[in-house]
Amino acid sequence: MTIEAKPSPRERLLEAAATLTYRAGVGIGVEALCKAAGVSKRSMYQLFASKDELLAASLERRTSAYVAMLLPGADDDREPRERIMHVFEQVESQAGMPEFRGCPFLAAQIELKDQDHPASRVAHEVKANLTAFFRAEAEQGGADDPDLLARQLSLVFDGASARAGIGADKLTGLVAPTVTTLLDAAGVR
Amino acid sequence: MTIEAKPSPRERLLEAAATLTYRAGVGIGVEALCKAAGVSKRSMYQLFASKDELLAASLERRTSAYVAMLLPGADDDREPRERIMHVFEQVESQAGMPEFRGCPFLAAQIELKDQDHPASRVAHEVKANLTAFFRAEAEQGGADDPDLLARQLSLVFDGASARAGIGADKLTGLVAPTVTTLLDAAGVR
Repeated sequence: MTIEAKPSPRERLLEAAATLTYRAGVGIGVEALCKAAGVSKRSMYQLFASKDELLAASLERRTSAYVAMLLPGADDDREPRERIMHVFEQVESQAGMPEFRGCPFLAAQIELKDQDHPASRVAHEVKANLTAFFRAEAEQGGADDPDLLARQLSLVFDGASARAGIGADKLTGLVAPTVTTLLDAAGVR
Repeated sequence: MTIEAKPSPRERLLEAAATLTYRAGVGIGVEALCKAAGVSKRSMYQLFASKDELLAASLERRTSAYVAMLLPGADDDREPRERIMHVFEQVESQAGMPEFRGCPFLAAQIELKDQDHPASRVAHEVKANLTAFFRAEAEQGGADDPDLLARQLSLVFDGASARAGIGADKLTGLVAPTVTTLLDAAGVR
C-alpha cells in the first residue's frame, strides 16, 4: 500500500454512498452519488450491478470501523458488565456529535422497509452480531436469562440511537442508569 | 355527515400519503401518491402547497387514531402502572401484524433526517406528547424521578417499535418484563 494512493473509483463510490445515505437517506439518487464520487454512471454500473448492490457494499465496508468504534478491543480484559457499559458509552458519545443521525444500520433497514434488500441483509447481520456480543457478555456475567438481557440491551441500543438521531433525546443521564437497572435486575455481577 | 359520503380528493390524498409512506417511505413520488388517490397532480397542488405539506397533513390526520389506539381511554381508571403497561401491550399487539413497520412518527423522522421538515415537526410533537403522558403517569405513580422514567419508557417504546418494524425482534416476552423492571426500579407502585 503506497502512502499517497488516491482512492479508487470503487472506494470513492462506497464512501459517497455511506456519507450521502447517512445524511440524506437511501432514496439518494444515482446521479448524486456518482457526482459526489467523481465517477461516471457508466463506471458505476461497471463496478456495481445496481444502486442496491452499491448500498449493500457501502454498509458492509462501514462495518469493521463501526464494530471497532463500539465494541471493547481484543486486549480489553474488564468484566462483562464494564464491557457492556463500554458500548453504551460509545453510543452516548456519538450521539453528542452534530452530524449524528442514529445507527446507520438501523436507519437503513427502517428506510428500505424490505428485509430482503441486499443492504437490509447486511445491516440485519451487523445488528444480530451486536446482540450476540451482548448475549455472550450476559452469559459470561452470570445473567439469569442471557437471551432476555441481550434482547433488552439491543432494544435500549436501538431506542437510544433512534431517539438521539431524531433529536428527541440527548441521552445524557439516560442510557447509563437504564442499562445499570437492567444489568442489576438480570443478576449480572 | 352523510353515511355514504365518498371521501373527498383531500381525504384520498391524505389516506394515500399515510398508507404509501408507511409502506414505502417518505421518498414515494408525487405521481404515485396522486395515482393511488385518484387525484390529478394539478388538483393535489391546489389542495397542498407541496408534497412536504401533504406528508405533514397526513401524519397530523393519523394522530388522533394513533393516540386512541395507544393510550388508555378517558374512562380508564386503573393505576398509573397499568395505564403505562397498556401502551406497551398495544405496541406488542401491533408488532404482531404482518404489515407492521414500526411507529410511523418515528420512521418519518428517521427518513426525513430534517428536524425542520413540516412532517418532522408534526411527528416530533406526537412523540413529545407520548413522553408527557408517561411523565404524568410516572409522577402520579410516585416515581422517584418522573423525568427519567418518562425518558426511559420513551426509549423502550421507540426501541421496541423500531426493532419490531425491521423484523429484528417479535417483542414477545421482552417489552413487559423490561417495562416492569424499569417501573420497579423507579419506585412506581
